[in-house]
Amino acid sequence: MSKDRLYLFDTTLRDGAQTAGIEFSLEDKISIAALLEQLGVDYVEGGYPGANPVDTEFFADRRTRKATFTAFGMTKRAGRSAANDPGVQAIVNSKADAACFVAKAWDYQVELALGSTTDEHLEGLADTVRVAAKAGKEVLIDLEHFFDGFKANHAYALACAETAIAAGARWVVLCDTNGGTMPSEVGAIVKEVLAVVPGDRLGIHAHDDTGQAVANSLAAVEAGVRQVQGTLNGIGERCGNANLVTLIPTLVLKPHFAQRFETGIDATRLERLTHISRAFDDRLNRAPARQAPYVGASAFATKAGIHASALAKDSSTYEHVPPESVGNERSVMVSQQAGKSNLVTALARHGIAVAKDDPRLEKLLATVKEREARGYSYDGAEASFVILARNVLGTLPEFFAVESYRASVERRHNARGDLVTVTEAVVKIRVGEDLLMSVAEGNGPVNALDLAMRKDLGKYSAEIGDLELVDFKVRILDGGTGAVTRVLVESRDDTGERWYTIGVSPNIIDASFEALYESFTYKLLKAEAARATTAA
Amino acid sequence: MSKDRLYLFDTTLRDGAQTAGIEFSLEDKISIAALLEQLGVDYVEGGYPGANPVDTEFFADRRTRKATFTAFGMTKRAGRSAANDPGVQAIVNSKADAACFVAKAWDYQVELALGSTTDEHLEGLADTVRVAAKAGKEVLIDLEHFFDGFKANHAYALACAETAIAAGARWVVLCDTNGGTMPSEVGAIVKEVLAVVPGDRLGIHAHDDTGQAVANSLAAVEAGVRQVQGTLNGIGERCGNANLVTLIPTLVLKPHFAQRFETGIDATRLERLTHISRAFDDRLNRAPARQAPYVGASAFATKAGIHASALAKDSSTYEHVPPESVGNERSVMVSQQAGKSNLVTALARHGIAVAKDDPRLEKLLATVKEREARGYSYDGAEASFVILARNVLGTLPEFFAVESYRASVERRHNARGDLVTVTEAVVKIRVGEDLLMSVAEGNGPVNALDLAMRKDLGKYSAEIGDLELVDFKVRILDGGTGAVTRVLVESRDDTGERWYTIGVSPNIIDASFEALYESFTYKLLKAEAARATTAA
Repeated sequence: MSKDRLYLFDTTLRDGAQTAGIEFSLEDKISIAALLEQLGVDYVEGGYPGANPVDTEFFADRRTRKATFTAFGMTKRAGRSAANDPGVQAIVNSKADAACFVAKAWDYQVELALGSTTDEHLEGLADTVRVAAKAGKEVLIDLEHFFDGFKANHAYALACAETAIAAGARWVVLCDTNGGTMPSEVGAIVKEVLAVVPGDRLGIHAHDDTGQAVANSLAAVEAGVRQVQGTLNGIGERCGNANLVTLIPTLVLKPHFAQRFETGIDATRLERLTHISRAFDDRLNRAPARQAPYVGASAFATKAGIHASALAKDSSTYEHVPPESVGNERSVMVSQQAGKSNLVTALARHGIAVAKDDPRLEKLLATVKEREARGYSYDGAEASFVILARNVLGTLPEFFAVESYRASVERRHNARGDLVTVTEAVVKIRVGEDLLMSVAEGNGPVNALDLAMRKDLGKYSAEIGDLELVDFKVRILDGGTGAVTRVLVESRDDTGERWYTIGVSPNIIDASFEALYESFTYKLLKAEAARATTAA
Repeated sequence: MSKDRLYLFDTTLRDGAQTAGIEFSLEDKISIAALLEQLGVDYVEGGYPGANPVDTEFFADRRTRKATFTAFGMTKRAGRSAANDPGVQAIVNSKADAACFVAKAWDYQVELALGSTTDEHLEGLADTVRVAAKAGKEVLIDLEHFFDGFKANHAYALACAETAIAAGARWVVLCDTNGGTMPSEVGAIVKEVLAVVPGDRLGIHAHDDTGQAVANSLAAVEAGVRQVQGTLNGIGERCGNANLVTLIPTLVLKPHFAQRFETGIDATRLERLTHISRAFDDRLNRAPARQAPYVGASAFATKAGIHASALAKDSSTYEHVPPESVGNERSVMVSQQAGKSNLVTALARHGIAVAKDDPRLEKLLATVKEREARGYSYDGAEASFVILARNVLGTLPEFFAVESYRASVERRHNARGDLVTVTEAVVKIRVGEDLLMSVAEGNGPVNALDLAMRKDLGKYSAEIGDLELVDFKVRILDGGTGAVTRVLVESRDDTGERWYTIGVSPNIIDASFEALYESFTYKLLKAEAARATTAA
């Protein structure tokens, strides 16, 4: 049975650029376009040539090889022809393969926001489509406020769609601009649109203001549209656009859709999805969402004891798709249900092979339990787990030992009468035979300790050059300032890898120092492994 | 026209506790239950009495006043009666009003995970329901794997639902345990269930593994169920549970639902939603999601120039609901007027009466904005807001001033060769004419500072005797050890009141000290108010 082709349209570089706090450089755009080509979307909408220097420069070249390179802009203004409209001409003259023009499908908005008449707006739409199509562009029309417009005046909303197609547009895209439409409404309205435009000329552009951008997109597909618009990791204005990273595996893996539709993304490309999603967050310099469907670090993580034991019997028990299919991995957390088989699985994930009957496993299990009882939690601190395991297994090198340290914070009035704070740390470290002592000032005691340690690590100094502390979280386990403190440190290096280490102590400085020390140790373990690979 | 009542069931404290990295203390559970009562959900599921010490202790008292306090557990094990099953009895004997038992609705899972027969499982379900109902509990049955089970063997899945109702269960909850079901499948399957159980006895429990937990819940409601389960901010195992903070405003504000249904949440409670969502994240010590529907900091933020100007003409242009309806705010063009009236409301909540045209309000508004830009957040730190407001309004007494302080932590080997940590703090305080200097050792620098301050506060020493620091949370705002630190301190005294103070500084010790100092100040303000009341 032949399947319908669904087209995936990515607007990360255009609508995604409306996200609060995100601003793309030209380099960002070029590198994200490459990620999108790896993923295999059909259209890459790159921005708004003529609107700003980055976008104009981005459209000075063709930036995709396979995907249809798409420019975005407004339909011509009232009072001039599309052939004489500088906005339309910037798009027509760009290196884009396709041109996506936005028009308003809500009569009230045409009058309010454009100050134009509804007839003028329809004529402008048709003129713009004709000019761009004649110039050889594939033309798309984004119908802004389509669903709200349809509810207010369905005749005008449908006239916009019909006019665009009659003028030669390849696609009409139904936009839920305010993001407030419900999936059942989307389904019902799409069915009415099918009376004037066939489904293989219709697209859906949804926003997540009620947490249903994905569901609205799928409802539109079920009703008949054949193009889906969205962004990487759901970035976008307000609550974001439909998240393509969530939509794609549902379309490709779920029989409900996979039996009826095909996309440009095959099983091999899908296995890159987790990597692409995380690489995109790295580019944005933000931590990936742990709970993200399919690609989040927790998406296949199980904590409940009964769940973990059932999972061991049959993974379909608590997994709706195999984690490998999207390039993610199962993580049965070391804690809680710490059975030996969990431990063997967790060790194998870090390249540590141990037989299930190895007597050291018993000792490792007991150590993990004893430490978790004291407040450690290896759920979110896998690097510390690796260090603990190698320590217990007897395969952890002692790179360096900390003989002592001291941190002090003093707040007082200086000679000019201003309140100042002075923070200082001293660290004494032994590397082999050498005893190294360093002192540093910092913004706070942990920063000062970090800087003092980095000042001189002897022969290892170069290897920690690209180690960067990204985040630092503190949790008090019992309550009050006298309670046990748990510190979680997130680190990163130039390879892009991120790792988490943990420290626990009644003293926040000791706990922080322990997590810092383990981060340094993990980085040195990585460097050692890299040397071993090169030598082999 | 009369509306159907929809019941909201919160499982933050039970299923939410499965979230990777989240572990609730007893204090957490008590404070989150209070937030849920503020919100106005119908059921608060608190955990699993008998399974761990925190949950057992939590169920030793009735922890809600209005909401139905619900305990969770498994139906009885094979080979014993429910009357003799310690798990079932722990729930029956707890202070819970309602008992929710989980049973499996997928025959394959019954055999695989429980090693039981399908008939035994049905009998166990019925026996458990009868025992709990006889003991006076309202009984709910969570049917795990209901949708997958229905697809595999619909007769068995339906038999589970029918059996539960026949035995006396008030509710049967259809769980999409693996989170892989599509909304259209949920709708179709619910309609088949209605043939054996009426909709006002059915609940939906959805997970977000395809990003559609909210849509699945709403699809079930449209098909006929009348109870919706979810968690605050969508926490939960893997990708999380259905997010009640997203679902509630959709049910209450969207005509599509509001015309047909009513919930226990009215417009006034809904206006607390943003505050409750953020206070919950504060409790979890994590940054609120900016893009969260309705309550995120970006949910009503507009960046696009054309959007912003249309918004100025008519806010419905790019806003699907008014931000004030959920206690959030528009973040372009914050009208100075709207800001001021918010402020007047917040001040009134703390007994500070200020006229709307008081010129000091302008200054307070500017101060709050300036401080929030530097990292302060008064959503979760109302005591600090009171201190800031009284300071700006000129009504804050200076109880005592801190001239200087010093904290030091030293880790080294002692004379016996053991590694020891010594932490010491010195505080110099001026109370009126007296200059008081105290020194103390502590478990950590903040504890030592706290103890040193308490040692001698002159004439105020007695008034802080019952001040207790309950919790202490640290968040790094930019990342890395050199970034800005935000410290939130939770305090309590013998009256049972809890208050929150905040400190922000690049230096964790300075930030902690600021929050500590404000907690002491707030406690002295309380003591002063109490004296005024007694005198009057």
